[in-house]
Amino acid sequence: MARVTIKDVARRAGVSFQTVSLVLNHPEKVARSTREMVGATMRELDFVPSLAARSLRKKPSRSIACVFSVGAQPYDDVTGMMQETYQGIVLQTFAHVTDRHGYTLVHRRWNAGEPDGLSRITSLVSEARVDGMVVLADRRDDPLIASLRAKSVPFFVFGLDVPEASFAMRAERDAVRQIVGYLVRTGCKAICFYKGERDGRHLPAVADRLSGYREALAAAGLRPRDDLVVPCDWSSESGYRTTLRLLRRAPRPDAIVAANDRVAFGVLKALHEQGVRVPDEISVVGFDNLVQCAYTVPRLTSIEVPTLEMVEFAVTTLIEMIEGVRAPHDPAQKLYPGRLVVRDSTRPFAEARR
Amino acid sequence: MARVTIKDVARRAGVSFQTVSLVLNHPEKVARSTREMVGATMRELDFVPSLAARSLRKKPSRSIACVFSVGAQPYDDVTGMMQETYQGIVLQTFAHVTDRHGYTLVHRRWNAGEPDGLSRITSLVSEARVDGMVVLADRRDDPLIASLRAKSVPFFVFGLDVPEASFAMRAERDAVRQIVGYLVRTGCKAICFYKGERDGRHLPAVADRLSGYREALAAAGLRPRDDLVVPCDWSSESGYRTTLRLLRRAPRPDAIVAANDRVAFGVLKALHEQGVRVPDEISVVGFDNLVQCAYTVPRLTSIEVPTLEMVEFAVTTLIEMIEGVRAPHDPAQKLYPGRLVVRDSTRPFAEARR
Repeated sequence: MARVTIKDVARRAGVSFQTVSLVLNHPEKVARSTREMVGATMRELDFVPSLAARSLRKKPSRSIACVFSVGAQPYDDVTGMMQETYQGIVLQTFAHVTDRHGYTLVHRRWNAGEPDGLSRITSLVSEARVDGMVVLADRRDDPLIASLRAKSVPFFVFGLDVPEASFAMRAERDAVRQIVGYLVRTGCKAICFYKGERDGRHLPAVADRLSGYREALAAAGLRPRDDLVVPCDWSSESGYRTTLRLLRRAPRPDAIVAANDRVAFGVLKALHEQGVRVPDEISVVGFDNLVQCAYTVPRLTSIEVPTLEMVEFAVTTLIEMIEGVRAPHDPAQKLYPGRLVVRDSTRPFAEARR
Repeated sequence: MARVTIKDVARRAGVSFQTVSLVLNHPEKVARSTREMVGATMRELDFVPSLAARSLRKKPSRSIACVFSVGAQPYDDVTGMMQETYQGIVLQTFAHVTDRHGYTLVHRRWNAGEPDGLSRITSLVSEARVDGMVVLADRRDDPLIASLRAKSVPFFVFGLDVPEASFAMRAERDAVRQIVGYLVRTGCKAICFYKGERDGRHLPAVADRLSGYREALAAAGLRPRDDLVVPCDWSSESGYRTTLRLLRRAPRPDAIVAANDRVAFGVLKALHEQGVRVPDEISVVGFDNLVQCAYTVPRLTSIEVPTLEMVEFAVTTLIEMIEGVRAPHDPAQKLYPGRLVVRDSTRPFAEARR
């Protein structure tokens, strides 16, 4: 049922897929006998070159676009946006990896609320300025994803699991289970979870993370409490203010799981100002493991995400689709487990003897 | 002596420069009488359409490239590079601003040590994939700048003053003079300066900053001491280690001016670990004013750089060059003064009465 790919042709013809690609794109560079044999195999297998492979025959741009969905609401806080550290890291990593693959990176923001927003993005492909796209979206029903799918454009979703699409994402539920499980083993019972949302937009991962949080509590026999799930956006400022509010409540929680490291930096600051000892009174855990975690007071426990590996996988997969080596209907999907990096903002636990 | 521009033609002909541009690029859209009149004015002024204006007649890409020079040595520390916060901010700001101007951002790294590196970058222009380039270079003699100049490609240098080129840069010397002047007025005398260099590469601004440092000391009647000018790279780790080494020396300095905020974060951490009180014993000042400065313990005094304004100026100027409104030999150059943001890592001073 699966579409016949260049790989299938190559396997049957007993040549490399690069040779098949050459036959398609630069037949003049291939010996006539090989050309004829590969051509016969293509006919035999009823092979139809993909859109991508055909566009290679015109002129590949050797460019891929990295498109950040900025949601239906325009992002009004420009400074906040510019200093969105994790996005900056992802973007720089894509630049580095595409470069190493001999591709050029085109970067666009995509705002579903903007008139012509969608056509401005897809025109990058229709005008052959990019060969494929990496999409960083908030929602599985992002119209850009639907549009790329309808147009058979090679695309890859980064950071979100979209059925039948190629994607790389963190195993968010598992990561939070790890964090909460660790906190429980250090004796924490009232574990506060900062959600990561703003103006109705939330991190794509929030639902998964909440599940992980609830599962870990259940596994420890702890009752989930709605008052411990706290709204908070992704900024240090929000982490700071949310924590000041939280401290006015009684009883206080004994741990805070922040939506990301930047939020956790604000949490630490608020606790320090209020004279709350970390981790003796309250433990704090971040998310992303930014370099900066090693320099806070106290140093921040966080969960490491293999961003470079994820980007490598995204770029490699996308290039396979662009070059016709991977069929569009054969998505490559990977979940990346996080690695908890324990520092000084959480307590050690007495390891049970085994 | 200056090259005749579209603007000159428009002024003489008494029409808008958009009309002149239309005559050049879409003459069919202009009334015949206007076309003939503008044409006569062009001949009269001996006007030669610029390369950019001529390329508009083909097909503008409506794209600009943002090229980061990564120096002659390849950057081996990928994680460090990815988390290069200031570069991430600059890149995201360019993406935001080019977007608002209806342009697409292409991002490349350029490594002078790589074979074909230069031609891989300039081919973006020769293949008409971008209309112009913003270059973030370390050195005024960066071969990319010379090459773009030789090819009459519209380009803009960001963060470095290159004679006869359009550029935006921070007034580095002035910024350090402000910082050191402030420290002196708070009673500091042994002011340590962390240089910002690595493997022979240094921040383009280092020489300017050193001048500012020495001028401020001289103005205060303080003797410059070579042992207070300390090598350090741009990472928190380097700030941390350099400070630990520094503290083993006697006598200790009473202030540290870090190469950037990330370095300062490492400085604060080392001082905290060693029980040195900030600012009572040692004052610390960063550079860039990252959001994070408000959340360190103590909060970090730093110097704010108007990145958004600088990027706006870069993109606007480059588009003027691309569209032929600004002649290549009429560079737009701006120095941006920093604004010192005093927080808790430096002491207040008693303002002298005037």
